[in-house]
Amino acid sequence: VALQRVRLDIEYDGTDYAGWQVQPRQATVQGVLEHALGLVLRRQVRLVGAGRTDAGVHATGQVAHADLPFPLDYRRIKAGINALTPASVVVTAIREASARFDARRSATGRAYVYRLATRPVAYGRQYLWSVHSAPSLAAMQRCARTLPGVHDFVSFCVARSAPKGTRCRVLEAKWGRAGAELRFRIVADRFVHGMVRSLVGSMVEVGLGRMTPEAFESLLKSGRRRGTGPAAPAEGLCLTRVFYPDDRPA
Amino acid sequence: VALQRVRLDIEYDGTDYAGWQVQPRQATVQGVLEHALGLVLRRQVRLVGAGRTDAGVHATGQVAHADLPFPLDYRRIKAGINALTPASVVVTAIREASARFDARRSATGRAYVYRLATRPVAYGRQYLWSVHSAPSLAAMQRCARTLPGVHDFVSFCVARSAPKGTRCRVLEAKWGRAGAELRFRIVADRFVHGMVRSLVGSMVEVGLGRMTPEAFESLLKSGRRRGTGPAAPAEGLCLTRVFYPDDRPA
Repeated sequence: VALQRVRLDIEYDGTDYAGWQVQPRQATVQGVLEHALGLVLRRQVRLVGAGRTDAGVHATGQVAHADLPFPLDYRRIKAGINALTPASVVVTAIREASARFDARRSATGRAYVYRLATRPVAYGRQYLWSVHSAPSLAAMQRCARTLPGVHDFVSFCVARSAPKGTRCRVLEAKWGRAGAELRFRIVADRFVHGMVRSLVGSMVEVGLGRMTPEAFESLLKSGRRRGTGPAAPAEGLCLTRVFYPDDRPA
Repeated sequence: VALQRVRLDIEYDGTDYAGWQVQPRQATVQGVLEHALGLVLRRQVRLVGAGRTDAGVHATGQVAHADLPFPLDYRRIKAGINALTPASVVVTAIREASARFDARRSATGRAYVYRLATRPVAYGRQYLWSVHSAPSLAAMQRCARTLPGVHDFVSFCVARSAPKGTRCRVLEAKWGRAGAELRFRIVADRFVHGMVRSLVGSMVEVGLGRMTPEAFESLLKSGRRRGTGPAAPAEGLCLTRVFYPDDRPA
């Protein structure tokens, strides 16, 4: 069969999944999508995702590529996949891509948003970390301002082999208010494992006065592996966008 | 015991509940709150809620009253209730109220918001109705503009006895965009059973071109019981605020 490389845009509620990447005997987002694609196309198809989100992490802007038989009606393929996946996983778009397009390697940046509530929350709690007191936005923003640029994020990396190292270029890092919520948005060329949750956990410690902004900055500069705050829980984190050369906002 | 009337502000994710009001052998919001209050106070306490939300309907601004033993540390009572209720129900505030305060009867208005997505949604789907095509916002807004004022909403009332009749004064009714969502906000002195979901269901029919705006207006004016669109599903609906004389936004 002739094959066509396609780009898939994917949204998911990560609550019930052991993350993006296929793992034996676990429900994963990649797993349910490859299973649905297999049923629709009657052949095994492998997906390559741009961001390997962890267990419980959500995505509104995940991107993956796959090689599908050609020619095909991709709108029907999309409808077929969405009919076969649980409601917690949706393919929002499928389109033909260049044979050189690689969802992971072609990506020039990824954006994550972390959502924080400063009181117990029932409505929307699947997507928020409820901190039962109000951290100082100014103190957290002071930490965020130290992040842009190239740093070694070894202090904020969950111990695990990092074959490509732990240096990342942060392009944007900012706290803001959205109604009663506090939201942290970070864009970087790449992320090391557990990085956003570790950064948010430590910044919240600073916001609550349990760590100084100087101690946070020193963790960033020193590369020490001790002294970070506990990682923020997965449910507040969402992969919102993957950037590619010449692409426009979806 | 001396009793003190208190006002409780309550937020809930209605997904797993058969509505606000206690019903035998069903999980209800009033039921889990009265159960938690009973454990905290070691006595049976009855709650009176401002809005009897239906099964699956959410609330960010429900209000209830109760008579509690006096004096008490209401902050501790609140923490106690929240520790004993499921994460889907949260008491956001308890405060002393006048003995004449009645959460239901003193209310001068209620605000509901209905959230609509125009494509399949995974992230946040518990709080949205996903209509898989895009209704015309202008056509729905044309319908909404006919709602303010006093009308007999018998056409938009789920058949059930309405002891206080079916006339309601709509103070505000408006569609708007919020990111990729369409949102309908309606404020009225009172609502008849199923009214918002029935109005939204019919307005979406108009937005999709399956009903004319004139037919919608005629349903409102005629009081006919036939011809409305199917009611919109419960998950998109949320009670966002209850108004009282002299109160300020929470």
